Amino acid sequence: MAVSNIRYGAGVTKEVGMDLQNMGAKKVCLMTDKNLSQLPPVQTVMDSLVKSGISFQVYDSVRVEPTDGSFMDAIEFAKKGAFDAYVAVGGGSTMDTCKATNLYASSPHSEFLDYVNAPIGKGKPVTVPLKPLIAVPTTSGTGSETTGVAIFDYEHMKVKTGIASRAIKPTLGLVDPLHTLHMPCQVVANSGFDVLCHALESYTAIPYSMRSPCPSNPIQRPAYQGSNPISDIWAVHALRIVAKYLKRAVKNPDDLEARSSMHLASAFAGIGFGNAGVHLCHGMSYPISGLVKTYKAKEYNVDHPLVPHGLSVVLTSPAVFTFTAQMFPERHLETAEILGADIRTARTEDAGLVLADTLRQFLFDLNVDDGLAALGYSKDDIPSLVKGTLPQERVTKLAPRAQSEEDLSALFEASMKLY
Amino acid sequence: MAVSNIRYGAGVTKEVGMDLQNMGAKKVCLMTDKNLSQLPPVQTVMDSLVKSGISFQVYDSVRVEPTDGSFMDAIEFAKKGAFDAYVAVGGGSTMDTCKATNLYASSPHSEFLDYVNAPIGKGKPVTVPLKPLIAVPTTSGTGSETTGVAIFDYEHMKVKTGIASRAIKPTLGLVDPLHTLHMPCQVVANSGFDVLCHALESYTAIPYSMRSPCPSNPIQRPAYQGSNPISDIWAVHALRIVAKYLKRAVKNPDDLEARSSMHLASAFAGIGFGNAGVHLCHGMSYPISGLVKTYKAKEYNVDHPLVPHGLSVVLTSPAVFTFTAQMFPERHLETAEILGADIRTARTEDAGLVLADTLRQFLFDLNVDDGLAALGYSKDDIPSLVKGTLPQERVTKLAPRAQSEEDLSALFEASMKLY
Repeated sequence: MAVSNIRYGAGVTKEVGMDLQNMGAKKVCLMTDKNLSQLPPVQTVMDSLVKSGISFQVYDSVRVEPTDGSFMDAIEFAKKGAFDAYVAVGGGSTMDTCKATNLYASSPHSEFLDYVNAPIGKGKPVTVPLKPLIAVPTTSGTGSETTGVAIFDYEHMKVKTGIASRAIKPTLGLVDPLHTLHMPCQVVANSGFDVLCHALESYTAIPYSMRSPCPSNPIQRPAYQGSNPISDIWAVHALRIVAKYLKRAVKNPDDLEARSSMHLASAFAGIGFGNAGVHLCHGMSYPISGLVKTYKAKEYNVDHPLVPHGLSVVLTSPAVFTFTAQMFPERHLETAEILGADIRTARTEDAGLVLADTLRQFLFDLNVDDGLAALGYSKDDIPSLVKGTLPQERVTKLAPRAQSEEDLSALFEASMKLY
Repeated sequence: MAVSNIRYGAGVTKEVGMDLQNMGAKKVCLMTDKNLSQLPPVQTVMDSLVKSGISFQVYDSVRVEPTDGSFMDAIEFAKKGAFDAYVAVGGGSTMDTCKATNLYASSPHSEFLDYVNAPIGKGKPVTVPLKPLIAVPTTSGTGSETTGVAIFDYEHMKVKTGIASRAIKPTLGLVDPLHTLHMPCQVVANSGFDVLCHALESYTAIPYSMRSPCPSNPIQRPAYQGSNPISDIWAVHALRIVAKYLKRAVKNPDDLEARSSMHLASAFAGIGFGNAGVHLCHGMSYPISGLVKTYKAKEYNVDHPLVPHGLSVVLTSPAVFTFTAQMFPERHLETAEILGADIRTARTEDAGLVLADTLRQFLFDLNVDDGLAALGYSKDDIPSLVKGTLPQERVTKLAPRAQSEEDLSALFEASMKLY
């Protein structure tokens, strides 16, 4: 269970200049994306940097759902800039790009694949010292401000993969609820689904004491340890917040209480899954996003086809938890109850179905697309989707139940239509 | 909110040599006390250091309930040793001594009072880099492995005070339940009371949003921020564990489940109070310990009169929570319920009495001494006890309700007899 240093409160972003000054920073890289560069969170950060007399350069070419190519572009920028600190203002794409940039700019002789998760990359442990990085999340889903994970599309293989190391965890996350007010409703919904799945997957992940092999040296421990008594607390607490506030946060942009609560829930779930890990919803989501054909998410201002991460994760959740519930059915029932199900008469052997039905109702209430078919996928795509899931062993092996290729096919098939 | 870096599991102590190696340590200071130096936890650490080929020196003169003098002795040892890392094996006394030693050995030109909390010391912020410190708790109370606090008796003034800075927080805490099996029952009880009060005080502390003044620069923020949505989670969770396991852990040395759970609860409550703070039970406990006359705690192998910290903290708890409950009575009722009270018919205005009665029953069941009188204090001592509490403003100001000297007198008086 590792450190996540976060500061929460309306307006904490205004302090970022002083924080960087306290860290000794003199030349800062401010990383964001093109949309956000015009919005108040970035302006607040720039004002604070100016006020503290810190010189900075803005990199606003972060790609929403980044790729190895877009990572590389940011890394080149940082290598030229010779920065001594970073501020990432945005969602998971921006924070993840900034983490990867900090890593490779601090390790200039490394090959890009050196630190990428095996089996796609070499998964080398990080031993170089990194620069301070302050993460300012503007969406409420990824929890990236609390984790040592950076996810990207590896274009060559058309799959998502990532870098996972405690070393790239932000030095400080500034969780400022004021940034949640300008989020489009669809972004609130999709990022909230990410929180939902972080909580459900980390809570149902294989227990840390059952994970194998046990590395001989602690430095070789994976970032994802399996469910444990600490991550469980965060997962359950985040789930309660999702149950209470997500619908309100989606439906009413002015509901500061609901949006603030989801902003914290995102960090809470991040601390949970950042230590425990996620499993099948996330593992299967990567090809769902990576193989996107023409689907363009509503309210996302992007120039390329895009299945938002949270959507790609949540669409398989009814099928996944039906599949996993034979292990730890009590936990599946418990989470269903938190999400509103009446489980008083539920039988243990129905735990998966109960949770799946609860999730379907939850998604239906929020007008979520009716399964993978609505994203443009058909049965013909299942072999590619399965093939894209297989390299996600880093997460799929944390599922409480092992999966064959046939199991994965069946899970994708069951996720084509939800209602 | 800084979460702490802990690793939990039976046997994790065996990895300490590899951890230190991974941190680049070559010459390590192993700090412990005389009793413990003969016991398995220290042996396990030494074996691991030897196996990893790390040279080390043992300092086993830690004083149980340390003083400025005993801190200074350890600091002198460390200055001579020029260590590049520390391992503290023991209870709060050892971990706190080690934190202070790391600080002053890393800042050799500082005066001792420079970093001590104001108003007793100067309370300077720590800006020097410290060496890695691994904390291996062998009691289940202090949570010191997770906090940036080091407490000692300032002999000149006969009061407890401390050093509080995020900078002295251990790099890693190894929370190994195997170390709990050789704790005498009285140590389990008293350290458990510390966990109980950490949880109750941090949960009822003034909310972070009501704390004042608000420092203009984040670096001036106190370590103790007031109760907040993150510390609340830890406090409530720790309290549930205390309610479920403390009696079992005290009464049955072989109950590994109960003792393991309390070991984790100690760390959980530490993360909670380490960010939120404690208030009156702790503030008033320092003179109760500091002014000790002849009381010698049972089962503590020490050569000086001693009121164990957890005992000095818990004896005022019924009076304190009766006093504080008019602020946030719901939280007082909620904690009473967690500790076993039936609150279905309780009135809000009785919240303090309900919690106090619940605490009295809890302490009675564990054969706790009947109040301050049983420690040798009488009414005549109250002025000195009050005088010793006044300098504890750092914590007492976190109480949800301000206290006059008369209030403090009344609280001490009400704590003379419990049953």
